[in-house]
Amino acid sequence: MTHILKEPVTGPSAWRRADVEDSSQWTYILDEKMRKEILESAEKIAANGDDVWSLSRTSVPLSRSADLFARCVDELENGRGLAMVRGVPIEGLSLEEAHTVFGVVGLHLGKAVPQNGRGDRVVSIKDHGIGRLNSKTVRGYQTNEALPFHSDAPDIAALLCLQQAQQGGEFYVASAMQIYNTLLEEAPELLGLYYAGIFYDYRGEEPPGEPPAYKNAIFGYHNNQLTCRYFLRQFADSAPAKLGFFQSEAEKLALDTFEEIAAREENYVSMRLAPGDMQLVDDNITVHRRAAYSDEADGATDTTRHLLRLWINVENGREFPQFVSTHRWGMKRAATVQQKD
Amino acid sequence: MTHILKEPVTGPSAWRRADVEDSSQWTYILDEKMRKEILESAEKIAANGDDVWSLSRTSVPLSRSADLFARCVDELENGRGLAMVRGVPIEGLSLEEAHTVFGVVGLHLGKAVPQNGRGDRVVSIKDHGIGRLNSKTVRGYQTNEALPFHSDAPDIAALLCLQQAQQGGEFYVASAMQIYNTLLEEAPELLGLYYAGIFYDYRGEEPPGEPPAYKNAIFGYHNNQLTCRYFLRQFADSAPAKLGFFQSEAEKLALDTFEEIAAREENYVSMRLAPGDMQLVDDNITVHRRAAYSDEADGATDTTRHLLRLWINVENGREFPQFVSTHRWGMKRAATVQQKD
Repeated sequence: MTHILKEPVTGPSAWRRADVEDSSQWTYILDEKMRKEILESAEKIAANGDDVWSLSRTSVPLSRSADLFARCVDELENGRGLAMVRGVPIEGLSLEEAHTVFGVVGLHLGKAVPQNGRGDRVVSIKDHGIGRLNSKTVRGYQTNEALPFHSDAPDIAALLCLQQAQQGGEFYVASAMQIYNTLLEEAPELLGLYYAGIFYDYRGEEPPGEPPAYKNAIFGYHNNQLTCRYFLRQFADSAPAKLGFFQSEAEKLALDTFEEIAAREENYVSMRLAPGDMQLVDDNITVHRRAAYSDEADGATDTTRHLLRLWINVENGREFPQFVSTHRWGMKRAATVQQKD
Repeated sequence: MTHILKEPVTGPSAWRRADVEDSSQWTYILDEKMRKEILESAEKIAANGDDVWSLSRTSVPLSRSADLFARCVDELENGRGLAMVRGVPIEGLSLEEAHTVFGVVGLHLGKAVPQNGRGDRVVSIKDHGIGRLNSKTVRGYQTNEALPFHSDAPDIAALLCLQQAQQGGEFYVASAMQIYNTLLEEAPELLGLYYAGIFYDYRGEEPPGEPPAYKNAIFGYHNNQLTCRYFLRQFADSAPAKLGFFQSEAEKLALDTFEEIAAREENYVSMRLAPGDMQLVDDNITVHRRAAYSDEADGATDTTRHLLRLWINVENGREFPQFVSTHRWGMKRAATVQQKD
């Protein structure tokens, strides 16, 4: 039976900007020895011709840095849901080598899951030059457009910066727990609607025989824990028509209200990644967005900025029904598979 | 922009049992002269070979009883939403003759609209012997089962009793406005969900090319008036699977809560119709249900009870968006047309 939480969320997960503005609280710096062991692990995997995703954490031990990643995951899951790791060793590496370094780090964060209908565990966040989010099949990681506040499907999204754009691309994070507390105070009549869930467009990545959109809750409360998933607004807005319906005004109001609260200046922090920075956000308790980015003054295209993304589920993570995050354990194989990048 | 009402509804529409228990407040009795003019009008229409639905109200004047029907409609729309007219002259008439009498009365209530995908303006509420409501195509008026609280699509539902069952068939009415007031007090977190709407099964009567279910609000607030539509729970429960989805727990909670409040003893009144009784309910402000009925002690079948139903929109009725009652103006022609009764 569903339980709609009517008390504010307390503890470090319900933060405002002022609580997290001192980024040293959630920043972890890899020292030279840590960088060296990560790089050497990656080189060894490459020399053996192994696929990093076929390996277990214990087979890739990091005696110096494993503890840092464990503290980082603890901060994500049980703290503010926000962490930055600086100094990931990617300087001078090929894209394939950087993938392997990211894989080594990923093994120490948790279990990486497929992020699209093709089964990719690492995706490139860059301007893929295949169109805009208002098209019917494009996803956020494939464009250089601004993205509104949203969460990703698994427990944690990890973004590793390889190159930054000439301009833009700032990253913003807000606490979904604090958004809930504000909703409880200002718009309690909308709460049930978030628990009931809305439809999200698969963007052409639906598994064979399934409808072109899926239903997902925005908030769920289980085992005394509130969990949030707020997927991209564009997917919520394009889903109803794909199903032959329309978005009701109350649904639009609920989405607008959530985003308006997230976007209040007192509620979010912003940052800009430099090469080697790894930004981590906990999707259970935070939402994030990014600014548009470009090499050009007109913002049209970008050929520079390049992040890699992992979707990670932590070990012994919180339990909640699949309805709270349909694709927490990764996207299934799609009926139609998109072109290779 | 949607507005979610956060104040209780006031006035006669928000009633409890104690406010309406004296049925003389909302009972209208046709005297012998009224009965005679209605019967004579119907006989004249039949003698001319006219279809009553092709006629206008002005062409079928009722100099003695028109005012009674006007007061009745005013009580429905602006009062308690509940009325009983006693003494409709149907004794000894054939079914076709009773249809015409009902049509004459209907013209003086408002505009009758099609109630199914076949375009019928009068439907027979009886045990059609075509199965149960848990089947995929059966509608409430076609079975002898108990029906939970619900509303019909137009402003007014008028039920004319031709014959009553040996047992059962009691009719219950509750104020949807009072249900709203209780929700506001006890479960305000669910309100937005009712405005957002849920899906209802077409039961095979979808217009060509449309999905097998439609989305409809439960409450809507427009022009300072709250309007309710609560369609049959069975249709809400069977719709998601037809679309390839599921009913979320929060949606189930919202439906359960609505029905639990309606079913509280202090909230509804009950009655049992006798031949010639016409029960009227205003679907904008009330919900109704009926008990199972049967000729048999085991409740299996019924060959006796027979009501006729009209769906009526009143002249200059309240305005609200189509989403609040998708079929207020009648059902469109269905892709698949059911068998004639």
